[in-house]
Amino acid sequence: MSDNGKVENVIIIGSGPAGWTAAIYAARANLRPLVFAGRPKTTPSTILPGGQLMMTTEVENYPGFPEGVTGPLMMARFEQQAVRFATRIVTDSGFEPDVANPDDGHMYAYHDCKRVDLSQKPFVVVGEDDKEYRAHSLIIATGATANWIGLENEKRLARSGGGVSACAVCDGALPVFRDKVLAVVGGGDSAVEEATYLTKFASKVLMIHRRDELRASKIMAQRAMDNPKIDILWNKIVIDVLGDQMITGIKLKDTKTGEESNREVGGLFAAIGHTPATDFLEGQLELDEKKYIKLTDPYRSVTSVEGVFAAGDVVDSVYRQAITAAAMGCKAAIDAERWLAEQGIE
Amino acid sequence: MSDNGKVENVIIIGSGPAGWTAAIYAARANLRPLVFAGRPKTTPSTILPGGQLMMTTEVENYPGFPEGVTGPLMMARFEQQAVRFATRIVTDSGFEPDVANPDDGHMYAYHDCKRVDLSQKPFVVVGEDDKEYRAHSLIIATGATANWIGLENEKRLARSGGGVSACAVCDGALPVFRDKVLAVVGGGDSAVEEATYLTKFASKVLMIHRRDELRASKIMAQRAMDNPKIDILWNKIVIDVLGDQMITGIKLKDTKTGEESNREVGGLFAAIGHTPATDFLEGQLELDEKKYIKLTDPYRSVTSVEGVFAAGDVVDSVYRQAITAAAMGCKAAIDAERWLAEQGIE
Repeated sequence: MSDNGKVENVIIIGSGPAGWTAAIYAARANLRPLVFAGRPKTTPSTILPGGQLMMTTEVENYPGFPEGVTGPLMMARFEQQAVRFATRIVTDSGFEPDVANPDDGHMYAYHDCKRVDLSQKPFVVVGEDDKEYRAHSLIIATGATANWIGLENEKRLARSGGGVSACAVCDGALPVFRDKVLAVVGGGDSAVEEATYLTKFASKVLMIHRRDELRASKIMAQRAMDNPKIDILWNKIVIDVLGDQMITGIKLKDTKTGEESNREVGGLFAAIGHTPATDFLEGQLELDEKKYIKLTDPYRSVTSVEGVFAAGDVVDSVYRQAITAAAMGCKAAIDAERWLAEQGIE
Repeated sequence: MSDNGKVENVIIIGSGPAGWTAAIYAARANLRPLVFAGRPKTTPSTILPGGQLMMTTEVENYPGFPEGVTGPLMMARFEQQAVRFATRIVTDSGFEPDVANPDDGHMYAYHDCKRVDLSQKPFVVVGEDDKEYRAHSLIIATGATANWIGLENEKRLARSGGGVSACAVCDGALPVFRDKVLAVVGGGDSAVEEATYLTKFASKVLMIHRRDELRASKIMAQRAMDNPKIDILWNKIVIDVLGDQMITGIKLKDTKTGEESNREVGGLFAAIGHTPATDFLEGQLELDEKKYIKLTDPYRSVTSVEGVFAAGDVVDSVYRQAITAAAMGCKAAIDAERWLAEQGIE
């Protein structure tokens, strides 16, 4: 039963680089896409409008912006571009967002999606206000969120560009981290990759690990231990992040002895994994063991359910860059357009 | 034997969206990449500096530019960004390009690469002046060029934004094509896809095909024939493109009767395939039957030779967008960085 007789060509769930790029391409293909852009994290929500870049200050590596761009401005530009080509966004007051002024808080009027039913065709998407929408195809671009240690000052400094990050490849090259002692929290393969990457810039990298051996694969663990610029601090957890405008140090606690100690650091990188926003898909769409959506053809955007396409960090545990997410959004829209044409729809 | 004792971490061949994005990411990873950016097509050359976008006027679908951007300006911005992070470019006068003014003709001083030897480690890259360079890893981003009919006026109008294009997904939505009769030259699956896509905007799409049946797969051919907005003109070739600032029509010749006729059209789309720039790799790297570089893992950028990564249209016969090419450049740089770290280099 639908509140709305109309069947959409494509509903896009998510509004990070993947979601907006899917919208740009779908809109230019005259599909009149409808976007569930999400709710700010002030409410319990699957998706954050604008995605993880909304918590990023300077983006230096998205190609096309030689002078850099802030994450929120970049996402406002993506959104403007999607809307320019007649993308519709589900809001409190209908489908027409006002993007003339990205600072006017219009995002607070955006709607999250509560539930999808992929067993019906057309697919059913239920908004946060329980309204039902139907669509011939879906593009899932709900992203993933970095896991944080969970400390107050960690989050505050991460949001303000104060030397706390969850992405070494994104932020490691920033001048603020040059020749500093940098801490990496985590013990998996990614943590070793991030620590190794940071040795290019840091005077020293401290890997903080709660156990007395790394979870990383043997070869990766050996690489960390062999690297003269990496010191592994075993059996330690971070219990506080020090610093006001900028991180100055971390407070550690030994998990065996309980002893507390401070270390001066010029940066902290959380490398304790990501959580893809796929809870609402559980049991409906094939996910991998880490809950990322599985692509049935890894070069494309096709999922285990025909007509459902996926893009961005919700499928990507490897690269996680704005540019790679955006490209997947483009692929998803092109794949959806061709699939709809094959079905004789549009 | 190398003219240069130094072994580079990574040499990037190509300077379209994939090449520059690879450079941005490799440079930010402190790899000091060296780029062979190619020669303008005034000389016989593998690669055109800036890639196919240099022949494009308005780009409306690269996310981040809601107001659109010209192809050459976009590529100048990519290049500036790569150079900002200490990318080096092989030029007549050394490695330091002057990108302050992208219109000053500095591109004419860029060097093409003549030959590579992937059987040696480090790999050998020979520049157009026969200088040899050695590198631990390579990123191949030499692109592909659209095949054109080969008419004087076709090329001129394609370069000037006069209604001639080789990419329906890129250009079909431009206002200039709305409600016009559009011609698509070609008879393969891509030609049917492009023609179908263009029916969203055109009043009518004419598919011009030199034979009396389409090369497209049965299902695709049927789709074209069933589409009321597509007329297939059998046994016809385009022998002239008419129009001064803007295309106004095409002159056709019947391949059976030799009869000539004119048709008024508001746009012409060449859909007769692309040629990837891989001649110089033949026999050294695994290519597919259409001569595109084969990725051994289609989610990543790895090729049949370890340490050689590939990105952009030189691997992509499906999407061919600036955003997808750029993303592959990012992946290639991240893959190269991790591979070098695994080898204990850098």
